[in-house]
Amino acid sequence: MASERVYGLHTVRALLTRAPQRVLRVCLQTGRSDRRAAEIESLARASGRPLERVAAERLRGWVGDAAHQGVVADIEPLPPMSEDRLHEQLAAAHDPLLLALDGVQDPHNLGACLRTADACGVLALIVPRDRAAGLTMAARKVAAGAAETTPVVTVTNLARCLGLVKDAGLWIVGAEAEAPQRAADVDLRGGRCLVLGAEGRGLRELTRRGCDWLVSLPSLGSVESLNVSVAAGMLLYEAVRQRQSVAAP
Amino acid sequence: MASERVYGLHTVRALLTRAPQRVLRVCLQTGRSDRRAAEIESLARASGRPLERVAAERLRGWVGDAAHQGVVADIEPLPPMSEDRLHEQLAAAHDPLLLALDGVQDPHNLGACLRTADACGVLALIVPRDRAAGLTMAARKVAAGAAETTPVVTVTNLARCLGLVKDAGLWIVGAEAEAPQRAADVDLRGGRCLVLGAEGRGLRELTRRGCDWLVSLPSLGSVESLNVSVAAGMLLYEAVRQRQSVAAP
Repeated sequence: MASERVYGLHTVRALLTRAPQRVLRVCLQTGRSDRRAAEIESLARASGRPLERVAAERLRGWVGDAAHQGVVADIEPLPPMSEDRLHEQLAAAHDPLLLALDGVQDPHNLGACLRTADACGVLALIVPRDRAAGLTMAARKVAAGAAETTPVVTVTNLARCLGLVKDAGLWIVGAEAEAPQRAADVDLRGGRCLVLGAEGRGLRELTRRGCDWLVSLPSLGSVESLNVSVAAGMLLYEAVRQRQSVAAP
Repeated sequence: MASERVYGLHTVRALLTRAPQRVLRVCLQTGRSDRRAAEIESLARASGRPLERVAAERLRGWVGDAAHQGVVADIEPLPPMSEDRLHEQLAAAHDPLLLALDGVQDPHNLGACLRTADACGVLALIVPRDRAAGLTMAARKVAAGAAETTPVVTVTNLARCLGLVKDAGLWIVGAEAEAPQRAADVDLRGGRCLVLGAEGRGLRELTRRGCDWLVSLPSLGSVESLNVSVAAGMLLYEAVRQRQSVAAP
């Protein structure tokens, strides 16, 4: 499997902390000696990862105008997570949060959802194998490193997978434009799997029937629906807000 | 000014209700006679707008695979809103919600923010003239009709504009990754102007100093920052949630 290049202090630090065995090489910009760069350096040394000093110009050559913050790393890509492995992880996790995308066909939207899922502490992103965007290079680029930290589970039968997720004790919460309950009206603490459908078409009937709750998101304006990655952001935001808040919703 | 083509029951109904004088022509798909199509027809007749029946195939030729729902309209584009006009509207509005983008350079992100702003009832979107994306055709397409309903105010000096917005009684709330307060911790009801900076760089210093509150959004993962349109979606979601809720945050 080819190596992937990631960048940014936060991303590289997270990889060195969580999965140092996947880091093949860390490149720090020549001349950087601030506290955060020093932390990357000591993390790399502590886990025995090769560290190089590289000129700013060369870093720019590798990642273009992206905000690399003086640190780039070559890593082993995160392998896809199997459905069996997902269920093992669910059994071990405390109040896991999952995101499932039902038929999202644009790789940019998949990448954007993955990036947001990572920021919101999602355990894994579930996508159906057919009629859905794959984790292409374009999707990885939009994910801005999240494809290297948040696993994607590709499933043959989404409804069946959601059934197994439910059996593992999670509640399934689908977003639907016409749902009478708002996202803030349901309890999103505890084990939850949030499900979003494709723009325009929404959730497929079989997916919809598998949901324990259907919730709506803001639609005060004239536009028919939210972009799916923005809708995912809103629903994940609401879950994180409730989980960080002391009071019940 | 060239006409724009918009589609979808919700968008066309909103235009016929809010700004019928801008609707040049309504095209309904031949054979559609359900309740929502009948509503469009009666709104068009009531405001004296030309109405045509058009074959499904021709509609598809105009808008491609987009979910037009059997209705397309040609409209006069929304003219840019002047800063003076913004201040007139602020004086007349009850608890207005504004969104300002500080140096967002990607037209796709501008379009995506405009679409979400529309869904969240934002009065106007403020963007600086320099070093920012313009309302290009690409931005309009991503906005999915919102460019025809939510006005964009292009300002020469964003900090000065925010100062005037503050003088009009609104509080300025900026999103910043490192802010100690979370968005849910501050009161977003009442007149508010939400401000987002460019990805990676964040708010410019002068913009930052103009904010009454700085708030953070979820960042539990390894990725450096949220996509700006997702961050805008989360912050707008939080504002709408608070405004729709009875309890104080």
